[in-house]
Amino acid sequence: MHGVGLGPGDPDLMSVRADRLVRGARNVAFFRKAGRAGRARAIVADMLRPDVAEIAMEYPVTTEIPLDDPRYNACLSAFYADAADRLAALAQAGEDVIVLCEGDPFFYGSFMHLHVRLTGRVPVATVPAITGMSAAWTATGQPITWGDDVLCVLMATLPEDDLVRGMDGADAVVVMKIGRNLDRVRRALDRAGMTDRAWLVQCAAMPEQSVTRLADFDGRTVPYFSIVLVHGRGRRP
Amino acid sequence: MHGVGLGPGDPDLMSVRADRLVRGARNVAFFRKAGRAGRARAIVADMLRPDVAEIAMEYPVTTEIPLDDPRYNACLSAFYADAADRLAALAQAGEDVIVLCEGDPFFYGSFMHLHVRLTGRVPVATVPAITGMSAAWTATGQPITWGDDVLCVLMATLPEDDLVRGMDGADAVVVMKIGRNLDRVRRALDRAGMTDRAWLVQCAAMPEQSVTRLADFDGRTVPYFSIVLVHGRGRRP
Ligand SMILES: C[S@@+](CC[C@H](N)C(=O)[O-])C[C@H]1O[C@@H](n2cnc3c(N)ncnc32)[C@H](O)[C@@H]1O
Ligand SMILES: C[S@@+](CC[C@H](N)C(=O)[O-])C[C@H]1O[C@@H](n2cnc3c(N)ncnc32)[C@H](O)[C@@H]1O
Repeated sequence: MHGVGLGPGDPDLMSVRADRLVRGARNVAFFRKAGRAGRARAIVADMLRPDVAEIAMEYPVTTEIPLDDPRYNACLSAFYADAADRLAALAQAGEDVIVLCEGDPFFYGSFMHLHVRLTGRVPVATVPAITGMSAAWTATGQPITWGDDVLCVLMATLPEDDLVRGMDGADAVVVMKIGRNLDRVRRALDRAGMTDRAWLVQCAAMPEQSVTRLADFDGRTVPYFSIVLVHGRGRRP
Repeated sequence: MHGVGLGPGDPDLMSVRADRLVRGARNVAFFRKAGRAGRARAIVADMLRPDVAEIAMEYPVTTEIPLDDPRYNACLSAFYADAADRLAALAQAGEDVIVLCEGDPFFYGSFMHLHVRLTGRVPVATVPAITGMSAAWTATGQPITWGDDVLCVLMATLPEDDLVRGMDGADAVVVMKIGRNLDRVRRALDRAGMTDRAWLVQCAAMPEQSVTRLADFDGRTVPYFSIVLVHGRGRRP
């Protein structure tokens, strides 16, 4: 079995290995929200074998359970266990299976929750990929880090004080999982004195890509695939 | 002109776009140390056109000038200015030129020093790539970050106290540019209480790749392409 990183969105930014695995796969598994097409599946839309078997793993609807309720974790955990069982059974029957992953699988990816449940049961190889953040800083046309710059990667779902602490200790900053947390990210950047240098990149390396200075963006919500970043200013000979 | 990220080392991990650009390029520029073949050039060894024109940009020998001497920066700066002039002249003459970059060009890359000198003179596009650190954590077989983990990327060339500060504020840590600084990294990890969880990855995604727990490594020096990392332990449903 392979966990295959697809990169940030543009199929042209998939690795040669991922491209080959996707085009050859008999069984292709991917996560999606119920009722949605799924971004990973969309990236490979024009690449699958005509006789491919698709395995859509649909996240359980959890909006009615708060994130800190133990039932939330229990529900997700049962979902991942069930998905891992399905894929393990296929692999044990001699089928080749690939799991599609957005970005790099081992970098805040959902595939990790399958990987930890499959390890030791069936052989699993992971194919690294270009992260969403690499596509985001490339889209700004400016390097993210220079010389000895310290880079801190933060999730916008963290408490505001944790965001400020991470920003204060860093020269360059990447904030992911912006979603409905944009206001908190703005407040944290203000407190860290970084608002002037912050950029918002929506859907990096996707057809709908947009790049703006955060100060010029007056929306309150952004798509799931959004990243806020602050470039470092380190040593430049 | 294109700055083309080649990824961590295995040509199979280049992006489809990079693969196409490298195979088609008439002029291929790359950095190397005087007297060395150059890693970027080695990655594409079997891919270049038979009629390719190669432009080796050799770093000036600077070992006799200390890093904090202003002459060090001046010397490098003149070198980058000169290289940028050569490439700009080619591009202005209508030639297509690609600059090979190890890993992702805008992530602590040398290409950035050309990019900043070429912007506004000739059109330059940058192709993102898989970073060395993605290949390194993939090689350990374990995800680097989970849930809301904070990831801090540090250069081993920083003072020990700065390393400790970065480690203390983070759940997951990547240390690059290890080279002759391994002892300092070890001391910082000890002070941050992270020694038991630290891994050393040498030459990730290269033929000579090696992965060891740092505690089990008794060497004093490591190759240039080495990364120390500590995995996060965040929320895992
Ligand atoms: C669960 S994480 C997965 C990260 C992914 N494994 C990677 O390597 O980038 C999802 C977050 O990644 C970021 N992201 C991933 N791809 C992106 C892209 N192409 N453009 C903007 N943000 C992206 C967004 O912040 C999103 O909320
Ligand atoms: C000047 S930085 C360039 C980073 C590069 N642009 C990238 O995206 O990974 C050089 C450092 O990157 C790290 N590095 C890059 N590729 C690596 C690999 N394949 N294996 C181990 N370390 C690597 C090493 O720590 C090295 O000292």
